[in-house]
Parts: sequence; C-alpha cells; structure tokens
Amino acid sequence: MTRQLSPTDEPVRLMVCTTCRAPGMPSDDPARPGARLHAALEDRLARDPDLAGRIAIEPVECLSVCKRPCTVAVSGPDRWTYVYGDLDAEHSADTILAGIGLYAETADGIVPWRQRPTEFKKGVVARIPPMKTGDA
Amino acid sequence: MTRQLSPTDEPVRLMVCTTCRAPGMPSDDPARPGARLHAALEDRLARDPDLAGRIAIEPVECLSVCKRPCTVAVSGPDRWTYVYGDLDAEHSADTILAGIGLYAETADGIVPWRQRPTEFKKGVVARIPPMKTGDA
Repeated sequence: MTRQLSPTDEPVRLMVCTTCRAPGMPSDDPARPGARLHAALEDRLARDPDLAGRIAIEPVECLSVCKRPCTVAVSGPDRWTYVYGDLDAEHSADTILAGIGLYAETADGIVPWRQRPTEFKKGVVARIPPMKTGDA
Repeated sequence: MTRQLSPTDEPVRLMVCTTCRAPGMPSDDPARPGARLHAALEDRLARDPDLAGRIAIEPVECLSVCKRPCTVAVSGPDRWTYVYGDLDAEHSADTILAGIGLYAETADGIVPWRQRPTEFKKGVVARIPPMKTGDA
C-alpha cells in the first residue's frame, strides 16, 4: 500500500519512562526495566539513520502508569498522543520503533488498526486528541 | 495558602470521554456514563463564570481507557497532561472541576500531591510531559 507522507519534517516524540520497574524490584535498583528499555531504544535508533530523523527519544521520570511497566508515550504535531504499557525491556524495542515509525508517517497519529503491532493493540493505556486547528 | 498565578490567560483543555460506558451496557445506549459526565461538567462549569474562563471542556469520542470509565484528560500550555479514570458520572463533576481549577493555577500542571482530590490520586491513568522549551 502507499504510505502517507509525513505532514511535517519535525520528528515525533517518543517518551520512555525510565523509572518503570518490575513488581517487587527494589526502588534503588539502577537496572530498572524502564532504563534498560530506554537504552535499547536509543541503541536501535542509532543504527537506523532514516528512522532516527523521524523519531526523537526522550527519557521521562515516570509516566504514572506504574502498574503496567514498561511504558512509553508518543506525540507529534497535529497528532493524537498515545500511551502504551506492558512493554518488555528486553524484546520490545524493535517492535516499538516499527510502530512509532508508522505513527510518524501519519498526518493525525492514527495508524490503521490492522497495521498496529500486537503490543500496541493490547498495551494501549490512553490516547489524547491533538489540539484543534486554530488552537495554540 | 497563596495560590500561584496562571502563567497564561489561555484556558486549560478538559477532555471528557463521551463514549465511556459501564461494563455490560449495550453499546447503542445513548445514556452512556461518559456522555452524562460531560453534560454534568458543562452544567456545573456554566454556573461558575470565573472557572469557565479558565477551563475549556472538550468532548472526545474515546480516550482508549475503556476499562476504567469514566475518563477525562487535562492539558494546557507548558503543562504536564494528565489522564484520569474511575470517575463517577453522577458524583464526580464538582470534584473534577475543583481539581482542574487547581491545575489551571499551576505553571507546569503539577498540583502538589496533598492538594489533589482523592479521585485524582487513585484514578491517575497516565501523565505526559510538556514539550520542552524551545520546541514547537
């Protein structure tokens, strides 16, 4: 199928909760799954120059989805914002970047359901509409 | 205590999911709890001219928090965005508006924990950081 062109050259924001931790893990453990997922995403993105120009990874201290680690959120100009949970620190990075790559190619952030990674279908925590046209 | 002044005259956005429904409720029932909550919020806000100038209510078809009805989200310039669930269509409107009023008075959207309504403390679904200064 023909992919939509991005309406803007501005990268989308992929926010990664670095404080997400497994149930029972000590809060002072530096190897939190969220931090490991963030590192894995940075590593994978650095190896893909095309995708790296379209996604800006941003570490965040707590997205307040503490019961469903690991967690990411994605937003972009004129697009719906999505929050995803239940992601795996070790195995989700490639899937996340593929899904966010599809998001970056949409005008409104809504990727057709069938194209969404299973992890995104099952892990959606919330979505938030973009500002209306004419808003600040 | 002295309240912070709002950093901007622009109202904050209170997005209300109008499609939220109770478990087992028929999907074609027009009296969805989300729609009733939206109506209650509009009604209460219309009676409070001061608050009405600081909060703009926006109905949304699905915030994708379907397991925790009713649901709202709040965002504003330079502020963290918050999503709240488990809200009651009949009894939460005043509490929501009071909580969002406090949010509107902050510069960054972060209301001190002790001031937050219990419904917000227990019902937080996610939070998303504002764009960094200098971003679009």
